[in-house]
Amino acid sequence: LPAGEQRTAIPGVATGLAVTGAGGDVLYVEASLADAETGGTGLTLTGQLGDVMKESARIALSYLRSRGAELELPVGDLKERGVHVHVPAGAVPKDGPSAGVTMTTALASLLSGRLVRSDVAMTGEVSLTGRVLPIGGVKQKLLAAHRAGITTVVIPQRNEPDLDDVPGEILAQLDVHPVSSVREVLELALEPATAPLASAA
Amino acid sequence: LPAGEQRTAIPGVATGLAVTGAGGDVLYVEASLADAETGGTGLTLTGQLGDVMKESARIALSYLRSRGAELELPVGDLKERGVHVHVPAGAVPKDGPSAGVTMTTALASLLSGRLVRSDVAMTGEVSLTGRVLPIGGVKQKLLAAHRAGITTVVIPQRNEPDLDDVPGEILAQLDVHPVSSVREVLELALEPATAPLASAA
Amino acid sequence: LPAGEQRTAIPGVATGLAVTGAGGDVLYVEASLADAETGGTGLTLTGQLGDVMKESARIALSYLRSRGAELELPVGDLKERGVHVHVPAGAVPKDGPSAGVTMTTALASLLSGRLVRSDVAMTGEVSLTGRVLPIGGVKQKLLAAHRAGITTVVIPQRNEPDLDDVPGEILAQLDVHPVSSVREVLELALEPATAPLASAA
Amino acid sequence: LPAGEQRTAIPGVATGLAVTGAGGDVLYVEASLADAETGGTGLTLTGQLGDVMKESARIALSYLRSRGAELELPVGDLKERGVHVHVPAGAVPKDGPSAGVTMTTALASLLSGRLVRSDVAMTGEVSLTGRVLPIGGVKQKLLAAHRAGITTVVIPQRNEPDLDDVPGEILAQLDVHPVSSVREVLELALEPATAPLASAA
Amino acid sequence: LPAGEQRTAIPGVATGLAVTGAGGDVLYVEASLADAETGGTGLTLTGQLGDVMKESARIALSYLRSRGAELELPVGDLKERGVHVHVPAGAVPKDGPSAGVTMTTALASLLSGRLVRSDVAMTGEVSLTGRVLPIGGVKQKLLAAHRAGITTVVIPQRNEPDLDDVPGEILAQLDVHPVSSVREVLELALEPATAPLASAA
Amino acid sequence: LPAGEQRTAIPGVATGLAVTGAGGDVLYVEASLADAETGGTGLTLTGQLGDVMKESARIALSYLRSRGAELELPVGDLKERGVHVHVPAGAVPKDGPSAGVTMTTALASLLSGRLVRSDVAMTGEVSLTGRVLPIGGVKQKLLAAHRAGITTVVIPQRNEPDLDDVPGEILAQLDVHPVSSVREVLELALEPATAPLASAA
Ligand SMILES: [Ca+2]
Ligand SMILES: [Ca+2]
Ligand SMILES: [Ca+2]
Ligand SMILES: [Ca+2]
Ligand SMILES: [Ca+2]
Ligand SMILES: [Ca+2]
Ligand SMILES: [Ca+2]
Ligand SMILES: [Ca+2]
Ligand SMILES: [Ca+2]
Ligand SMILES: [Ca+2]
Ligand SMILES: [Ca+2]
Ligand SMILES: [Ca+2]
Repeated sequence: LPAGEQRTAIPGVATGLAVTGAGGDVLYVEASLADAETGGTGLTLTGQLGDVMKESARIALSYLRSRGAELELPVGDLKERGVHVHVPAGAVPKDGPSAGVTMTTALASLLSGRLVRSDVAMTGEVSLTGRVLPIGGVKQKLLAAHRAGITTVVIPQRNEPDLDDVPGEILAQLDVHPVSSVREVLELALEPATAPLASAA
Repeated sequence: LPAGEQRTAIPGVATGLAVTGAGGDVLYVEASLADAETGGTGLTLTGQLGDVMKESARIALSYLRSRGAELELPVGDLKERGVHVHVPAGAVPKDGPSAGVTMTTALASLLSGRLVRSDVAMTGEVSLTGRVLPIGGVKQKLLAAHRAGITTVVIPQRNEPDLDDVPGEILAQLDVHPVSSVREVLELALEPATAPLASAA
Repeated sequence: LPAGEQRTAIPGVATGLAVTGAGGDVLYVEASLADAETGGTGLTLTGQLGDVMKESARIALSYLRSRGAELELPVGDLKERGVHVHVPAGAVPKDGPSAGVTMTTALASLLSGRLVRSDVAMTGEVSLTGRVLPIGGVKQKLLAAHRAGITTVVIPQRNEPDLDDVPGEILAQLDVHPVSSVREVLELALEPATAPLASAA
Repeated sequence: LPAGEQRTAIPGVATGLAVTGAGGDVLYVEASLADAETGGTGLTLTGQLGDVMKESARIALSYLRSRGAELELPVGDLKERGVHVHVPAGAVPKDGPSAGVTMTTALASLLSGRLVRSDVAMTGEVSLTGRVLPIGGVKQKLLAAHRAGITTVVIPQRNEPDLDDVPGEILAQLDVHPVSSVREVLELALEPATAPLASAA
Repeated sequence: LPAGEQRTAIPGVATGLAVTGAGGDVLYVEASLADAETGGTGLTLTGQLGDVMKESARIALSYLRSRGAELELPVGDLKERGVHVHVPAGAVPKDGPSAGVTMTTALASLLSGRLVRSDVAMTGEVSLTGRVLPIGGVKQKLLAAHRAGITTVVIPQRNEPDLDDVPGEILAQLDVHPVSSVREVLELALEPATAPLASAA
Repeated sequence: LPAGEQRTAIPGVATGLAVTGAGGDVLYVEASLADAETGGTGLTLTGQLGDVMKESARIALSYLRSRGAELELPVGDLKERGVHVHVPAGAVPKDGPSAGVTMTTALASLLSGRLVRSDVAMTGEVSLTGRVLPIGGVKQKLLAAHRAGITTVVIPQRNEPDLDDVPGEILAQLDVHPVSSVREVLELALEPATAPLASAA
């Protein structure tokens, strides 16, 4: 299996896009729920996340705690089961708000049991009401997505003008979706509920 | 829909006014309540808020915890449901006491289910007893409100003299309400309770 | 209404005196109790208070927790209701022990439902046993009280000699009470229990 | 009443001795227990205490929690009632281990309801097993005690040789007790259990 | 007994490999579960672990809390029993993500009661989904394993190319297993469940 | 009574050895358990302990929480009774892992009610599985033990070669026990269970 398919082969993992010192890169957001019988509670964040990125995770979780029922997600699972959000690689510092949609998608995948499509990558800040706010580095992120074999990219609506900076031959090979709400992201990125669950790594 | 209408289309979002390095700007305060069944509790604050602004949120919440029943707000919802107050954009540091009335209004909207009027913006420090205390930057804030299409602005009573500094053609297009208590802000800014709820983003 | 009367028109607000860079000034200590049904608990302190002033609030609260019953205050209200002490203005850093008696008075007013007299201002460190200990800046504080229209000032007994430095024409217009215990402060500053409650701001 | 008698006129206050920049001085350790009905819990420490002095308070409390029953103290009161230890003056930083015996005595007085003798001052580090360990500044502390009208001073046994440095005319007017255990301190410093309780400040 | 056999003679200890200032070295990860009757709870981490290494321990524990039941581990033991992960030597600062597989293995050994094979050492970052991610220092780590008498070494699949740098005579004496999931590590490293438990040190 | 006998005359006190700026010295580790009726819980550490030494105390406690039942210690006492570990003198900063065996011994003495032999001093890092790991300063520590009248010293097995540096006339007067496990330390250092309890200090 290609790397992306392996990484997203269980619910709770979504593919994001980041700007690094050396251009753009794909990153994976991994989310887990503790078995209720283990007594794990609360929210654990790892991956050397900076303050802004930690806040993104808290926003993503609060969005699901307050709006998840509307999205038909079994949010009651959050009550007695600890949530952990991790972003490998473990030793690389990461920051910024643009992983907000990826974190929300990973958590929605985890709650719903629906896999995240392995050919979809996403970037976008998320607000507490589920709006998708603009981010930076669209060009580098799309180049990175293309290099990684991604075919569908979700970006914030307000970043659509930045597509002008992306080489035409790259854009031609990508299905780019500008969106303004998290609902749209979830509709695009989550596999249907009937997809068979892959076995865990 | 214009941006402001979209942003305030669900209960829990109020439009504030801030002074930035580049003049004034509109900001949105977003508040959410966790579904009781998710077990979320406590107060979460995000948006890279500074110490003074975090204290404003605590004052706003304590005001509602102690005076909300007088305002006929269902404050019992606060008991078992986590409150989250977020101020986008997620990566922009923010500070100062002048978002106090906006935070109080967002929380009152959330509890009451009444939308905040999308044509109203506000600025003002709030005290623990619900008094509205003066702030800075009235001129820049009114210019920003006007640029954003806002038609009604709430300012502290004690800032009324600062209106002299605002160009007359701007003032003529704004309905400016100097107020001395949070009650007045809520009466001006909240839509009637009978307004149909917009669907969530 | 004059400012002081407005500020102290609900139980839980007492008028203090502070030394600032520009002489002395009046400050208001505001206290609130969360409605029990909101689930708010613990002690919240806001107003950019320094370490010593935060300790004053804890001393005031512990004094009432341990001695309040002797003062016929309904201290059981503290058990399930969160206490918040705030000192506006929200963005101005404040420190020092001299607001101790003001904090104790605000909390005693809150618990008893008795208003604090709007014509009374006070200054004094409070000990855990309810003693009133000396403070600095008596001259500047009395001048500030006089400017603000205050007619009765409570100071620590051990600061009585400092009255020699206050201009005679000011002293003539002030009723100054040197005290050595918090009990005396409360007797002077609280309105009788039968006073009608003002409506909240 | 002289200052010392006033300060120690309620259970929970003991007279200590400190070395300051300007020689020695008397200090008062005040302890309080929250009424159980107020819901106050835990240990609160105020008075701008440094790390070592905060540890002394924890040692004093743990000594009473583990050995207090042997001393016939009603330690069960600690279970549901918050303990507060304060050392005025509130704005003066204090540190060092030598207030250990004073803190232990104040807490034992509080639990037993027995007053601390107002003519007794004390200094000494306390260990977790109730041993009294040597401290510094014996000469300055005895001079300060004498100045303050104290007639009985408790010092650690191992500090007895330091008495050679104290002027003979001072020693002649002081009853100095070198001790090696906290039990001895309590026997010397606490009034009999049958003493009538003074009214609170 | 050789050192490694002694160290791993009770469940809960796994042999890792680290890069130090002086080449590579073997390290032991020790894990314990508090007896439920002692009331110990939560996760304790010791050994002067840096931030990244502490996060590795949290990832390892969350992996087992969410996936442990699939691995037939009695994860319910985590509910009421405190977990402690220690990495001797106590005074040596340690950091980095490469102990992730070792921590996971030590915890899985502890829960299952199966010993970790004393002839196996391992290195590899672990993700929240149980993937084994690449690390640095493969050459130094294999040399260190060989010096310590280890015969089987587990490394991340993606580090297989680094084996080219390891001297052939060393590789010839080591059984090196490149792996991509924690499941593979556990299958290689844990003794069968039927192994008799060694007596505790 | 000599100092050492006095110090260890109640269960919960063990004699350690430390390296100081001025050679070696004897130190006492004191441990106490809060009476269950006092509501004290958790672990309190005092004596100006550095990070490594605090971790030693946590390791010692976790060792007893997980292995204490095997040692026939009544570990259930830990459930509802707060543990305090103190190392006098209170104002002297201390650090390092070598007090691990002393802390474990003090806690085991406390739980078992068995006194620690007053003629035994010990040094050694302890691991979470109860192994005794090597430490530094053996020569200075043995000289200090000899000066203090100690006749039996416990050192880590792996420090046996360091005995070559200790003067022969000192070694001749000491009974030195190199050990590799905490079990051995406890067998050497604890008085038989039938020893009469000394009265508390
Ligand atoms: Ca970013
Ligand atoms: Ca395309
Ligand atoms: Ca502001
Ligand atoms: Ca107008
Ligand atoms: Ca002051
Ligand atoms: Ca007068
Ligand atoms: Ca001192
Ligand atoms: Ca004498
Ligand atoms: Ca490493
Ligand atoms: Ca091989
Ligand atoms: Ca040491
Ligand atoms: Ca010998």
